Amino acid sequence: MAFIPREIEESLRLLQKIPGYGERGAARFLYGLLKLPRNERFELVKVLAEAAKNLRPCKECGIYTDREVCEICSSPERSKKLLTVVEESADAYAVERTGKYKGVYHVLGGRISPLEGIGPEDLNVETLFERVERYRPAEVILATNPNAEGEATASYLARELKRRFPELKVSRIGFGAAFGTYLELLEDFTVAEALQNRREYKP
Amino acid sequence: MAFIPREIEESLRLLQKIPGYGERGAARFLYGLLKLPRNERFELVKVLAEAAKNLRPCKECGIYTDREVCEICSSPERSKKLLTVVEESADAYAVERTGKYKGVYHVLGGRISPLEGIGPEDLNVETLFERVERYRPAEVILATNPNAEGEATASYLARELKRRFPELKVSRIGFGAAFGTYLELLEDFTVAEALQNRREYKP
Repeated sequence: MAFIPREIEESLRLLQKIPGYGERGAARFLYGLLKLPRNERFELVKVLAEAAKNLRPCKECGIYTDREVCEICSSPERSKKLLTVVEESADAYAVERTGKYKGVYHVLGGRISPLEGIGPEDLNVETLFERVERYRPAEVILATNPNAEGEATASYLARELKRRFPELKVSRIGFGAAFGTYLELLEDFTVAEALQNRREYKP
Repeated sequence: MAFIPREIEESLRLLQKIPGYGERGAARFLYGLLKLPRNERFELVKVLAEAAKNLRPCKECGIYTDREVCEICSSPERSKKLLTVVEESADAYAVERTGKYKGVYHVLGGRISPLEGIGPEDLNVETLFERVERYRPAEVILATNPNAEGEATASYLARELKRRFPELKVSRIGFGAAFGTYLELLEDFTVAEALQNRREYKP
């Protein structure tokens, strides 16, 4: 009879549900976790449990939050006249870390990818149009990732926004960043530059 | 003011303590976790918490277990006359999965690696000698990984075991596996073959 602790078998099985995690990735995570000092191990699983339990998409903008409507959407200091569209929450946090942004966000939940069969109907695009209709922002900044799919998504959104709201200013983040990287990984300074150097989108 | 949920910031910070996890690895894990359906997410963090809380090295052999002495060491069906030495618990589980092994294990907790400054004194080597002294097994199987460091570790152990216990049979797992892979990732059949084809170690 084989004696493998249930916690090991179950952890390895469930870890493989995480996108991009195969056998090796699951093992690397689990045994890495078990090698941490006891207190760090406990701290990590505690906060992961809190994240899994407390966080959900903001009803308004889609950012992960521990409340119904996130702190950004409900802050009187944040202007709904400036709306930045990002692929994922992580991208919005990258902008937040610059400390320079005073508007709100809209999380698409991905990007248009014909190769993966992801079209606008699979993303939070209709709710973007609804929010623009409702808040009539002065400007929408398209901050999808600076790569081919992010560009295609920005191009699509710019066209559709202009068609629906001809007076709306639609801009794209400035390319301070090298094409092909991820917004979420850029230095704060580069993200700030890119926001500063945004250009009006003329589809 | 930047609004980033505490659970996100703390999770990203703590995940980077896992060996091999940088900013990108931490983000990939966390946002992958958050994208799982609610029930799978809960199931995963629950079992990870259990693993972190319940598992610790067996006092006897060093395998991760939820008791003082593991099920293998305390099973009357497992013979202490056959002892298999592995680098990590994960390697012992690979052997367990074959269902063909009836002996016990000894976990070194790593391998000799001059490049990383890891010598025999950093591994559970003295306890191996003590257990061999105590149980006088008929055979010790060296099942360190089939790569350069695993070979060096096996070679060192074979030499030291033979010096201390000249009558002891010391063997090395058969190379059914391609040199350069990891024991833990092999097909059960290959692991079984390798156990079957073990050869006596002549240092």
